[in-house]
This record gives sequence, structure tokens and C-alpha cells, in this order.
Amino acid sequence: MSVRAGIVVTGTEVLTGRVSDRNGPWLSEQLHALGADPIAIAVVGDRPEDILRALRFLASEGCSLIVTTGGLGPTADDLTAAVVGRFQDREMVLDEPLQGRIAEILRPLMARWPDLDADAILVSNRKQALIPAGAEILEPVGTAPGLVVTPRQDEGPTVVVLPGPPRELQPMWRRACETSEALLAALAGATEYRRDVLRLYGIPESEIAATLRAAQTARVELDRLEITTCLRRGEVEVVSRYEPAEAAVYDAFVQLVRERHRDTLFSDDGTTVDEQVFRLLRGGGRSPAQTIAVAESCTGGLLCARLTERPGSSEVVRGGLVVYSNEAKVALARVDPALVERVGAVSEAVAEALADGARAALGADVGVGVTGIAGPGGATEDKPVGLVWLSVSHGDGRRLTRSLTLPGSRVDIRDRSTTVALHLVRRLLLGGADARC
Amino acid sequence: MSVRAGIVVTGTEVLTGRVSDRNGPWLSEQLHALGADPIAIAVVGDRPEDILRALRFLASEGCSLIVTTGGLGPTADDLTAAVVGRFQDREMVLDEPLQGRIAEILRPLMARWPDLDADAILVSNRKQALIPAGAEILEPVGTAPGLVVTPRQDEGPTVVVLPGPPRELQPMWRRACETSEALLAALAGATEYRRDVLRLYGIPESEIAATLRAAQTARVELDRLEITTCLRRGEVEVVSRYEPAEAAVYDAFVQLVRERHRDTLFSDDGTTVDEQVFRLLRGGGRSPAQTIAVAESCTGGLLCARLTERPGSSEVVRGGLVVYSNEAKVALARVDPALVERVGAVSEAVAEALADGARAALGADVGVGVTGIAGPGGATEDKPVGLVWLSVSHGDGRRLTRSLTLPGSRVDIRDRSTTVALHLVRRLLLGGADARC
Repeated sequence: MSVRAGIVVTGTEVLTGRVSDRNGPWLSEQLHALGADPIAIAVVGDRPEDILRALRFLASEGCSLIVTTGGLGPTADDLTAAVVGRFQDREMVLDEPLQGRIAEILRPLMARWPDLDADAILVSNRKQALIPAGAEILEPVGTAPGLVVTPRQDEGPTVVVLPGPPRELQPMWRRACETSEALLAALAGATEYRRDVLRLYGIPESEIAATLRAAQTARVELDRLEITTCLRRGEVEVVSRYEPAEAAVYDAFVQLVRERHRDTLFSDDGTTVDEQVFRLLRGGGRSPAQTIAVAESCTGGLLCARLTERPGSSEVVRGGLVVYSNEAKVALARVDPALVERVGAVSEAVAEALADGARAALGADVGVGVTGIAGPGGATEDKPVGLVWLSVSHGDGRRLTRSLTLPGSRVDIRDRSTTVALHLVRRLLLGGADARC
Repeated sequence: MSVRAGIVVTGTEVLTGRVSDRNGPWLSEQLHALGADPIAIAVVGDRPEDILRALRFLASEGCSLIVTTGGLGPTADDLTAAVVGRFQDREMVLDEPLQGRIAEILRPLMARWPDLDADAILVSNRKQALIPAGAEILEPVGTAPGLVVTPRQDEGPTVVVLPGPPRELQPMWRRACETSEALLAALAGATEYRRDVLRLYGIPESEIAATLRAAQTARVELDRLEITTCLRRGEVEVVSRYEPAEAAVYDAFVQLVRERHRDTLFSDDGTTVDEQVFRLLRGGGRSPAQTIAVAESCTGGLLCARLTERPGSSEVVRGGLVVYSNEAKVALARVDPALVERVGAVSEAVAEALADGARAALGADVGVGVTGIAGPGGATEDKPVGLVWLSVSHGDGRRLTRSLTLPGSRVDIRDRSTTVALHLVRRLLLGGADARC
């Protein structure tokens, strides 16, 4: 059975782009995993009438569950609880025990900010204890309680009201999924789906479109799968969602993708290239752990930041040199100044020297060098904006070097360069030879 | 007059969070600047019925302009043009001159990927030349054309159909704003608003709520302004939107904020701390340019990446050391290994040594040192996850050092640390003394 679900993200700061919303997509994925069918995320400002309209839209689309985020804070523009009360036709009441619990939470915070106006804080937070009559309270993770508000007449959607900060929202949602009977009732009977991801690197999206057509010619019943493809940070991602009974159809599809895209399919188990590089570096089984270091110019630290995103990365990442100036390339990565003079900072030879220099300076097994022109300035006649040279070298003498000209803005070029670098590292760690790739 | 506008972001990859949407908020801000009143962003998957429902929802809410993003690509799940045609009751027709222009665009791309199936690409892209009859074409920036599709009966919203990649969408939108008569007609009569931003650092959001109450007591007519406050990367942002006639009310409000938050209000002209640091480093007038270098541990390169986000940053950013391991702290930033042994890597003395080491290694005027525990592992009895020590030192002998314990996840702690570091740099460059701050 399909259980339709919708998400309302509130907040003028989100609607106008000052804060980028992480909650809508996160909740969509959570609902999907629980077997619901998320049909839309509505992002609206703080105006009560807009929040109400979004709730009514999703209700009219047959959602039996709506999750709201944001608008539970202490300020006057935090109005979600009251709007949901109105939507469910429930009056607002002060929950005194809840007010007491919020006061307890605030006590240590107020000790930390001794100059604050204590009365102002208590007035602000009394507001947070006003809830629709009969609502189920989800205990605060920060200071704001969440709510599960069912319809009064057993008709229409159940609304789960969550705070905006992801670090409050996520644990509160997880706990609600275990403890809230009203939430579980709204989700009852949802179909179970599987969701699998293929990732390819180095081909345009239109090639996957051709493969989907070929699959149909080969009588793979693709209409039994829900397949979406997209470009993401320079990779093509193919996501399939299907009922467990259709697993054989999915397997046939994967087989066909493997045959047609042997060289570019790098993940069929959900792993990202970041995870693959991390695992390869950590080793295990017969392969020993290896360490990595980078010397990066145009990416300005982003490659090293990406390598250290994962907890535990300190085991394998030795560190990095951000050699933004030519002087830094010479002083830190020991690039020969005569070489820079002769071939220019954005060149094959300097990328290789950076990779070797990173390895030497940080005592790592693998070195990565990145040098390019992120723009908008800095281009020369033969070196356009977007030109990036990358090199990966190993202490055992192997090396992979390549250049490419990336499209897009400064942000795009810097970000995309980190993806290219990770794929070069992956290839080298899988045994790539001393060849261009 | 209020001209209501709505945005429909399509794409299952966006709805499920695999790709984060930058277009919805960007367009919302653009519409706002043009005097329209963006009421909602609806994010839906690739299913035609969900796209159609989102269009109908926004139309029923009185939008006279709807902008869609995504779903113009070559694959079978790119259906936006056809859905908008159906919504506006216009049949789909092949525009042969457009098909020819797309083929021209593809020619060099196909030369770059010589192994591709040329027929497959042409079939895929013929699809992109199928448009609703009578629609205005917005010429492709990538390969996909945009569209402006008016209602057939002069009733209902005008729909602007834009591609998903921001680097195609943004120039196409800007050009449409200049050239599309249908778009300009839909926006005719929109009220002009001003939008101003105050930024504060180092106070909780509830203090601003108290100031808003105080303003009302002081008879500042806040209801003539539309004020929203939010926490963003560790700062409080107060955005006001108002009609030009209310400028005096806004000025009175700013005056009050200045009085009450003298120490924490750092921006009243729209600038970010990143911009302020960049300007201070560049100097101008009587102050000379100064250079900066960083040695960062827990932030893994993010601080240097943030300092180099801006075009022209190579003038002032010398580079950075990502000293993730203790060996790197010693070898690259010349931190005394006995010091690390005695006080630990996350300590006041090591943060100061890192700042000095960065300055020395890269020959910069200003050095920044960051060392902390981003978690989830690595905490000790007296050093919790989130503890970060930061130090900024200047070649003239001044220094600012502080520690704090940041809440949240590994991602939050790493990101927030970069904000704290930038504020320390700002304070030092503004003449901060040799004191804790």
C-alpha cells in the first residue's frame, strides 16, 4: 500500500536561501526508508497563512502523514505549533509540566551566558510550552519540544512537528519512530521498498539514457523499477527503487550496466568514492594500511577537508599543504622554482612535483598534487579557466597524472577537482600503472 | 502591489536529498529583489502528476508567476516541459530550428567524447526540442533550452521553465529578466522592497527576541518592517524587508540594536565576516595589505578553503598547513614535540605555536592556529568532543587566543570552528590587543 507523506519546511531564512535546508531531504529519505511515499517538500516562510496553505495542499494531495520542521524557537516569528493547532482544529494550551522541564534545560545555559536577561528568556520559552490540546509531546533535544498532532475527527493527516536544527531534529525523529503510536499508526501498511545505487565516473548522463533504452530492447522490464539518474559532483548516479519481489529485474539491469560500462561503473553497493578511498587506504586482510598527504593549490584545502570528513580519517590522512602562492609551492612542497618559471604553476610537471613533495613533507605513502585555474581571473592564452592538472604518486614508484578543463563557476571547478582527485587516488590504490588515465 | 510567485524544484534526486538544491533559494531571492513575493518552494520528484499538482497548488494560491527548475535533460525522467505544456493546455510541438541549434551545441561535445553512441545522443536531444506550442524559447546555456509559457486564456500564472544545473539556470534567468516580455508582464506592478541585514556574533538568538520586544516598548513601529532572525553558522542574522517609505522606522530599529548589542553587532551593511576579513587583509587607504596563513588540525583544510573561496584571495592568502597528525604539527608548523607531549595537541600553547608556525612557514603577516576534537572519537576526561583552541598571531607581536566547546556533530564542529577563527582574525585586524576574547 502506498502511504503518501509530505514535508513542510518553514522559515523565511530557508525560503530566501540564507540557510540551506538539510531537513527536507533528510526526512524524505527517512520516510522513504519506512516505506512511505514522500510526494513533496514545501518550503515556506514564517507567515502563518503560508504554513497553513502548505499543510492544506499536502492534505488535499492525500498525505496521511505530514512532517514540519522549524518555527519552534523562542522568537515571535516561530509559529508552527500554533498553526498546526489551527490546522487540526485544536486550541492551544499551556503544558505546565513541560514548561518546568524547559526551565530545567535552560538553567545551565543561563549559567553559561551570565549577562543575559533571565526574564526575557523565561518569557520567550514559556511560548515553547504552549501546545495544541491533546498533542503528544516529543521531549526536547535542545530546548524546543516536538509534537505529534492527530486530526480531531480521525480524518486527514497526522502532523509531526519537529524543530529546525538538524542536531535536534534527527534524534527526535528517530525516537518518535520508536515511541510514538500516532506516528506508527500513520505509517501502518506502507509498502516496503528496496533502494539501490549505481555510480559511474567519466561518462555523460546521456550514455545512461542509451543504456536504459538498450535494457528495454533486451526485455529487461524496467517499468517494474523506479529508476532515476542524475549528475552529482561529476559522477552519474543511477538510483533504483523497487519492491523486493522485483529483485531479479534489478539484477538483470545491473548486469547490463556492468557489461556496457565496465570502465566507468565504480560502485554498485552504495559506496561513494570517498568511502572507497578510505577503505583502500585503511587496508585490511592482506593489504596493509597506507597513509596519504596532499599538496593542493586551486582547491585551497577542500581536498584535504574532504579526505578528513570521515571519523577515523586521522589513521590514514597525514595532512596537507595548501600551496596557494608560488612561494609556498617552493618552500613547502619543495617544487623547483626554475621548473615553475619554465612551465608555469599549472602544469603536468608541477602537479607531479606537488604530489611527490606532499609525500616527502608529510612522510606519506601516497601523495596528491592539484594545481589549476579556478577563475574567474588567472587564465592565459593557452591555459583557460577550469584547466586543472592532477597527479597521484606512490612511494613504490607508481604515478597517475591527468589534466582536464572543468566547466562552471569557481565553486564548481574547485569542488569538481576534488572528485577527480579522489578517482585518481582510487585508481592508483587499485593498482593503476604508470600511465595517463 | 503584491505579485505572488512560486517555485517548483523537480527531481527525485533533489527530493531524496542526493543532490542539494541551490536553485529554489536562489530564485526566491531573485524574485524578492524584483519586488515579487515568493510564497513557497515546492520540491517534487520526477513524476509528472506530482509536478502538475505542485503547479496547480501554486496557481490556486494566487501566484501570477511560477518558475520551475530541472527536468529538461535528455533522459526519460526529464518531463517538465511536457507537464508545463499540459498545465497550460498547450500541445507539444517539435521546434526544428531549435533542434538544429541544439545539434550545433552538441557537435564539439561529441568530439570530446569520441566513444559515445552518436545516434543515442541525437535521439535524446531531439526530445529537448519538443516544446509547448507558442512558448517563448530561452536559448540554451548548456544543451537544454528554457521556456516561458503563458496561459492560453490570459488567466492563471505564467510559467518560466529553467534547467537544473545552476550554471545554466542563473545566466538564463538573468537574460530572461531582460528580454522576455511575458516574464516582465507577469512581474508588472510588483512593490519595491528594501532588504537589509544585521549580523551579530557571540549571543544567543533569544537576546534578539528580547531586543525586538524592547523596540516595541520604545515605540519603534516594528510591524511596518518584516523582520526575521536566524542562527547561521554560529552567527545571528536579522533580516528586515520594508517598503522604502519605512526607512526611518528601520533606522530607529538599527539604532536600538546598536545600543543594546554594541559588542556583538559586527555587520550592518550586508557584509559577511568573510568579506570583512578579506577587505581588512587587502587594506586600502592608509592601511597596507597584509597576508595570512593558517595551520589547522581538526578543520582539516576547511578554514583555508573558506579563506580562498573569493576570487582574488591569492593576493592575501599565502597558503596553509593541514597538520592532522602530531608528526605534521612538528615537521611542518615546527611545534615543539616536547610541548605536544606535555600539554597535548588540543591546548592553548599548541594553538599559539600553530599560529606562529603558519606565519613562519609561509612568510605571512597573520597566522591562524586551530586545534580541536571534532569527534565522535578522541575525547579524554578533561577534553570533550567539541573542544577547540584557536589562536591568531600577528608579526607585530599581537595575539588573540581563545577556546570554546562547540555543540553538534563532527560536521557542525568543523564548520563552526572556521567561523570562530574568522571572527578572531577580524578582531585582531581591527586592532585587538594581546588579550583573550
